[in-house]
Amino acid sequence: MRRRSGRGRYDRATIHAILDEGLVGHVGIVSDDQPYVIPVLYARHGERIYLHGSPLSRLVRNLAAGVPMCLTVTLLDGLVLARSAFHHSMNYRSVVALGEGRAVRDRYEKQEALRVIVERMAPGRSEDARGPSAKELKATEVVALPITEASAKIRTGPPADAAADYELPVWAGVLPLGLQVGVPVTDDRCAVSVPEYVTGWTRGES
Amino acid sequence: MRRRSGRGRYDRATIHAILDEGLVGHVGIVSDDQPYVIPVLYARHGERIYLHGSPLSRLVRNLAAGVPMCLTVTLLDGLVLARSAFHHSMNYRSVVALGEGRAVRDRYEKQEALRVIVERMAPGRSEDARGPSAKELKATEVVALPITEASAKIRTGPPADAAADYELPVWAGVLPLGLQVGVPVTDDRCAVSVPEYVTGWTRGES
Repeated sequence: MRRRSGRGRYDRATIHAILDEGLVGHVGIVSDDQPYVIPVLYARHGERIYLHGSPLSRLVRNLAAGVPMCLTVTLLDGLVLARSAFHHSMNYRSVVALGEGRAVRDRYEKQEALRVIVERMAPGRSEDARGPSAKELKATEVVALPITEASAKIRTGPPADAAADYELPVWAGVLPLGLQVGVPVTDDRCAVSVPEYVTGWTRGES
Repeated sequence: MRRRSGRGRYDRATIHAILDEGLVGHVGIVSDDQPYVIPVLYARHGERIYLHGSPLSRLVRNLAAGVPMCLTVTLLDGLVLARSAFHHSMNYRSVVALGEGRAVRDRYEKQEALRVIVERMAPGRSEDARGPSAKELKATEVVALPITEASAKIRTGPPADAAADYELPVWAGVLPLGLQVGVPVTDDRCAVSVPEYVTGWTRGES
């Protein structure tokens, strides 16, 4: 929330890479002047971001109706511990995408969007899991947000302390943070062995 | 974004625990009918959430002026890989706090809020780093959001597939995710050894 020059990045490749590494996005929407921010699974597909949810959800209905929305994806890369409290910060990469959603009603596009969402959760999964039935497709609303008004912000590197503070006898540096992947937990009611795309699951560079 | 019974939790202890484990929150705010969602560092202190930022930032100024806001904190605990694409989901814990912020202008409360924010980033840090000068205090806006209208949502456990799908020869289960803590990177310009509160830094149960 500090204004700093140099943190804004706008090139498409950077924006795509951040969106593709993220798993959970935060959707912002307004209702009666009150903003709401909700965590969602999402997937980028070309120049679109797909979200899905139940048509019974008011939030989803509003998104599908095309009200102004914001989708923000943040990757926390580390805590920046400066010599002064004032310069404490975080290393992160984030994308803020603004716009209006479009309800995906075309059957082919809807199936493809849901396939992409599952596939981005775990590459390989969409060929393994059972695809949606006609009834399930009806019970799912898919919203497409075009990536037209999007920006990225990135902070990397060491703390930036005030010149005089570099003489202080205070440790300063970065504590790197990332995504920890645990051992897959097989459902008690499942006798199938864990597939390689699950045991070998990774995201980003960690 | 699916409506499911049983995911809502509202007790104070649950809400506090999620807020205290999170590091980054997502603030939602409205400007000209457009919602914006921005990642921020924050800290809970009693029944308040403190945020800080530059008074030069329009977002921060609006928060300080008391416009309706939303702060959402999400902890991603795992990917839920169901037998059907339809039932794919995530295990997570989230808090959504609604309300209006209050600019913290009292010098004592402001110092205390900034201390708490640094301390929650790394317990022990606030006694090590140099505290804010009068000039730095002026250059920082602190906003307090009372935790009055807050709710938590939690999903845990295995996939919930449709009854007939349990016979499918598809692996199903959960891929646990958490926060990975790397090796501290000391600033090139720092000769102080890494303190124990950094080498031993943990968050949550991982």
